[in-house]
Amino acid sequence: MAELTIQFRVRYPEVDQMGCVHHSRFLQYFEMGRVELLRQQGFSYADLEKAGVFFAVVRIEAKYRSPARYDDELSLTTRIVKQGTVRIDHEYVLKRGQTVLAEGMSTIACVDRTGQVQQIPEFMAGGTV
Amino acid sequence: MAELTIQFRVRYPEVDQMGCVHHSRFLQYFEMGRVELLRQQGFSYADLEKAGVFFAVVRIEAKYRSPARYDDELSLTTRIVKQGTVRIDHEYVLKRGQTVLAEGMSTIACVDRTGQVQQIPEFMAGGTV
Amino acid sequence: MAELTIQFRVRYPEVDQMGCVHHSRFLQYFEMGRVELLRQQGFSYADLEKAGVFFAVVRIEAKYRSPARYDDELSLTTRIVKQGTVRIDHEYVLKRGQTVLAEGMSTIACVDRTGQVQQIPEFMAGGTV
Amino acid sequence: MAELTIQFRVRYPEVDQMGCVHHSRFLQYFEMGRVELLRQQGFSYADLEKAGVFFAVVRIEAKYRSPARYDDELSLTTRIVKQGTVRIDHEYVLKRGQTVLAEGMSTIACVDRTGQVQQIPEFMAGGTV
Repeated sequence: MAELTIQFRVRYPEVDQMGCVHHSRFLQYFEMGRVELLRQQGFSYADLEKAGVFFAVVRIEAKYRSPARYDDELSLTTRIVKQGTVRIDHEYVLKRGQTVLAEGMSTIACVDRTGQVQQIPEFMAGGTV
Repeated sequence: MAELTIQFRVRYPEVDQMGCVHHSRFLQYFEMGRVELLRQQGFSYADLEKAGVFFAVVRIEAKYRSPARYDDELSLTTRIVKQGTVRIDHEYVLKRGQTVLAEGMSTIACVDRTGQVQQIPEFMAGGTV
Repeated sequence: MAELTIQFRVRYPEVDQMGCVHHSRFLQYFEMGRVELLRQQGFSYADLEKAGVFFAVVRIEAKYRSPARYDDELSLTTRIVKQGTVRIDHEYVLKRGQTVLAEGMSTIACVDRTGQVQQIPEFMAGGTV
Repeated sequence: MAELTIQFRVRYPEVDQMGCVHHSRFLQYFEMGRVELLRQQGFSYADLEKAGVFFAVVRIEAKYRSPARYDDELSLTTRIVKQGTVRIDHEYVLKRGQTVLAEGMSTIACVDRTGQVQQIPEFMAGGTV
């Protein structure tokens, strides 16, 4: 199954007054992971949207193990665990060095410009599994 | 069990280029729900933090049913479903009119200034259950 | 000239690890001010966009006097200081009680769906000045 | 005077429903520019804060020339134009390829943990000018 690890640095406005990355931000990191995994597979999500292929998050789950701090260098591993005709399930592990900060999973569904569910295009089937 | 419904309006930067509230924002709405529920119970989260009582999200789950749009008036119902000595579980239902847009649940843990788990203060026990 | 004061409360993820509302957020508050001023004049910005009338920020300026904190109740006064055929200049004063936290000004330009400058619709001329 | 150009990619939640990076985000990009310029000079802003040296934005100005889109690769040039005993003025140019998207300037002031203005530490004087 497709998998990719990306590295990035925590930005100042992503951190709250507890000095921790706000938990909602982790979902934005997960999205960055999906987009870069797609790019590795030869697809630009920006181009897919122009072609009328959108992916909407229908379910998300996250477990927070340890806080991420401002300026931390994080690594995020994104992995496709299941791909059906309209849905894709991803799993995520976010780390700082060897420390697991969070784990997550999501289900995204392929939708058209109006938000109606549509089949994942055939040209993506080979790429993503 | 404690429960509160709040109303608010979707802001422009909360909406992405699909014209939908970004899924990560829903977690920020849930947090607003928890804070207002706390306020209804007589507690200011801002004051709690000053007193060394912090709550960290340790688990979150959300199901997205239908998109929220810019300028929509939303109602969010937040409910405590379980309160232990260190953890509180909440459930959330986000609606526009009668349409359910999303459902969620979270577990928060009481931590001190350094992030160590601590017992929920006794004065909150009466208030929150 | 049109003017409106709105009240709102600082949300948790709007505050950074210095315990202050991040300076970039003030621009989002200013935008809320413009939108509510428009609503007071009888226009929904959401509807304007559907009708092909967009406003893009072309210039912004802000002076920060004093920090805003989590859970603060703020009041923002938004005022139109100049309205031309394609541009509108606003001024903003953000306060907590009597304390001025920030002042700002912006110029927005009327653009169409493709981003090309267009004249502000006639039906808005009466409303906004 | 110190100057640095950084490259980065526009993230999905940074783009609004007009398909453009929200204007408030540019201030967050400018901040990334300042932080990386500092790092090039041998300083970690995270460490400075731990040592009680904070920088607060007291004035900001931005002119928006052309929109930035989702997934664009942008380059931001940050330059110190003036450094006094307590304040530093920066200028910013944000580009996509050869196209200037925005220009900005800011004044930041050195403050202590309580927000009181303090002199920029001597060890930074050599680094930043």
